Amino acid sequence: MVQENVAAPGDAPIVRPLPISGFPEWLPEVRVIEQRWLDTIRRIFESYGFCSVETPSVEALDVLMAKGETSQEVYALRRLQADADDDSARLGLHFDLTVPFARYVAAHFNELVFPFKRYQTQRVWRGERPQEGRFREFTQCDIDVINVDRVPLHFDAELPRIVHEVLTTLGVPPWTLNINNRKVLQGFYEGLGVADPLAVIRIVDRMDKIGRVGVGDLLATRAGLAPDQVQACLDLAAIRVASDAEVVERVRELRVKSDLLDEGLDELAAVLADLADLPAGSVVADLSIARGLDYYTGTVYEAKFVDWPDFGSICSGGRYENLAGSFIRRSLPGVGISIGLTRIFAKLLAEGLLTLGPASPADVLVVIPSAARRAAALSTAAQLRGRGLRVETYHQPDKLAKQVRYAVRKGIGHVWFPPFDDGRDHEVKDLTTGDQTTADPTGWTPPSA
Amino acid sequence: MVQENVAAPGDAPIVRPLPISGFPEWLPEVRVIEQRWLDTIRRIFESYGFCSVETPSVEALDVLMAKGETSQEVYALRRLQADADDDSARLGLHFDLTVPFARYVAAHFNELVFPFKRYQTQRVWRGERPQEGRFREFTQCDIDVINVDRVPLHFDAELPRIVHEVLTTLGVPPWTLNINNRKVLQGFYEGLGVADPLAVIRIVDRMDKIGRVGVGDLLATRAGLAPDQVQACLDLAAIRVASDAEVVERVRELRVKSDLLDEGLDELAAVLADLADLPAGSVVADLSIARGLDYYTGTVYEAKFVDWPDFGSICSGGRYENLAGSFIRRSLPGVGISIGLTRIFAKLLAEGLLTLGPASPADVLVVIPSAARRAAALSTAAQLRGRGLRVETYHQPDKLAKQVRYAVRKGIGHVWFPPFDDGRDHEVKDLTTGDQTTADPTGWTPPSA
Repeated sequence: MVQENVAAPGDAPIVRPLPISGFPEWLPEVRVIEQRWLDTIRRIFESYGFCSVETPSVEALDVLMAKGETSQEVYALRRLQADADDDSARLGLHFDLTVPFARYVAAHFNELVFPFKRYQTQRVWRGERPQEGRFREFTQCDIDVINVDRVPLHFDAELPRIVHEVLTTLGVPPWTLNINNRKVLQGFYEGLGVADPLAVIRIVDRMDKIGRVGVGDLLATRAGLAPDQVQACLDLAAIRVASDAEVVERVRELRVKSDLLDEGLDELAAVLADLADLPAGSVVADLSIARGLDYYTGTVYEAKFVDWPDFGSICSGGRYENLAGSFIRRSLPGVGISIGLTRIFAKLLAEGLLTLGPASPADVLVVIPSAARRAAALSTAAQLRGRGLRVETYHQPDKLAKQVRYAVRKGIGHVWFPPFDDGRDHEVKDLTTGDQTTADPTGWTPPSA
Repeated sequence: MVQENVAAPGDAPIVRPLPISGFPEWLPEVRVIEQRWLDTIRRIFESYGFCSVETPSVEALDVLMAKGETSQEVYALRRLQADADDDSARLGLHFDLTVPFARYVAAHFNELVFPFKRYQTQRVWRGERPQEGRFREFTQCDIDVINVDRVPLHFDAELPRIVHEVLTTLGVPPWTLNINNRKVLQGFYEGLGVADPLAVIRIVDRMDKIGRVGVGDLLATRAGLAPDQVQACLDLAAIRVASDAEVVERVRELRVKSDLLDEGLDELAAVLADLADLPAGSVVADLSIARGLDYYTGTVYEAKFVDWPDFGSICSGGRYENLAGSFIRRSLPGVGISIGLTRIFAKLLAEGLLTLGPASPADVLVVIPSAARRAAALSTAAQLRGRGLRVETYHQPDKLAKQVRYAVRKGIGHVWFPPFDDGRDHEVKDLTTGDQTTADPTGWTPPSA
């Protein structure tokens, strides 16, 4: 494809149609697989009784900033030809689905039944520099539960179970869902006598990027911890076990005491116990997981590919006690988890791990042998369509070989030949086997259907 | 719900969670109906062999402006904390799906099979002042065909047929799809000796808003037409008939001659003839329809509610000869039609014409009679789910009456009681009839499923 930005004489200038970096789009044979993924995710979310919610792509900037997410990531709007009372300047595209959901629950508080369980599959936008696995527009699939005053721990275990079913059903390559509890971290640091536990959490959260040595350095130099405190923090972060009994035992061995630690450990153990039936390695307590966002208060989740440890998290979430409380004078805690659909999908596509679909959804192409037979072809197509089949009619009378070639190129599995003369039989050709047989439009179904 | 923007002592300030004007969002019992609509639309689009395409929400501003759509409507992006080489300033949210689709076809020209038939259901954004039927963010469902050099007229008739099936299946109140052909208008005005036919088209396009008298005035004063020319233009615009033969006859009676008029009239008649089997009144040739956008060149469509004539168009589209040609040095004409999903849906909702769905997708709620029976309840739920049912488990042991009330409030039709003692039967209560009977988790299905 030749693209030039110079105008030929007499022509309008050509605007380059190149895709914009960080804003992915797929060819039809890829999109059809993404649709199957979305259908599977929806089916599984609904099978656990989560209802669908969508919110506007746009929120007021003060809503987006209510919990202090870095403003650098937000795309704000401006009208190209704004007039004096333009109010779009205070609007921005949402950067996640948790903040909009909390705002939604506060806005419709009197009309919802609690605990309110919803799923939300939408695009989100972040003004980041694109790199592998990082897009500026991408789709997330979130499930969250918000309740009045208290969210039962039941949900902290139900959400990873649902995510496990989704990733397994989609055939995503091996992953681990790491679980921790912010109360364990905060209680442990408090029990150690650390003055600012949140500062320690933020440093430990960088373990992936700077490693144990880097974290240890920062704990000493920036957070001002004594050597034995640093060592204890690193020992805690090194705990990575699957069983509820073992995680309790390993933390107890570090001999730090605090009520908050006990509470967090009880919660973490209860969640692990509830998930004990899942396959080994799929859910692990990893006490280095902190999740940087301030709004998490209890359970936190982070899933990663086993084979691509540096790829970043493919699912994440946690428990937030006071997010909706930014918008309404009620205590509305929640817990949620987000599947990074575009990130996972694009990675599998790049690795050649997706089997692409056909370029057309049609089960069968009905040919138009001649202008005289066009009406009969259209009526046959309508008859097949009425029986639930997906049927493309060729768009004009043409050589049959050309029409068959069109079906092949679009990945349509069968070609239907209406009879050339009244009284003769319909015929259908299976493009996979090459077989051509007589067929009855009132009863035929494609072998694969 | 009390909302105050003043902070209580010791609390963070409350950010008002009110919805933003022009950005609709639905409660779960409304959203579930919107989902059913989207499913129906997708099923029908695919049944005609159209594949799914999605494009980014964002395009380069010069792409959005390639065909001169009024820039006032576009929301451009800006990063809140942009650095020196911020490139987001040249990006904007798309205001329709036709321009992005044309850009997509040009960008992926070598990878697509032509004629390329796609459907695209996405949100679009317009920086307009909100009013009834006008949103700033809304969902459109588009079907278009783009081909190299020439698009067969077959598609000009197939698209209204598909729209007819969609609106009928959705149970949308009576509407009419009005069809015209820009060649008829342009050829007629040329045959009349009008110097600037496009200026006349733009004036006639305002018939809905300013009426025959207003259009007549503007044709005389602004377009400089002589009284007999004005009269001929108004006579043409007054033609509104369903049959192909009649539209030809009525235009011929006006005794204006031009080759382009003949060509347009042949096309219009052919499209009407192809659609003659549709119910009377559903498709009508209306020679006042012009569609303001410059990029239409042949067939144009515009659907309206019969009972709300002032509501504006609910579907629109037409044939464009050179839209993708803005992006690539190929002739890539197309024809398309767009269903204004949000506009139609919101109108029916406002008129009380939608039967709302349940607030939960679950078929059945499995209760947790006691902590001791929780594991049995979860396992029964998993068993039912494994058989394809949508099953919510109550989130904690609680009074049974409270758990049943929760199901009633969420619109869940059945409540499942796992046995209190091993060896006793499972029971299920139908909340519609009130009947409670024994049930087998390996075979039970809800009566409505």
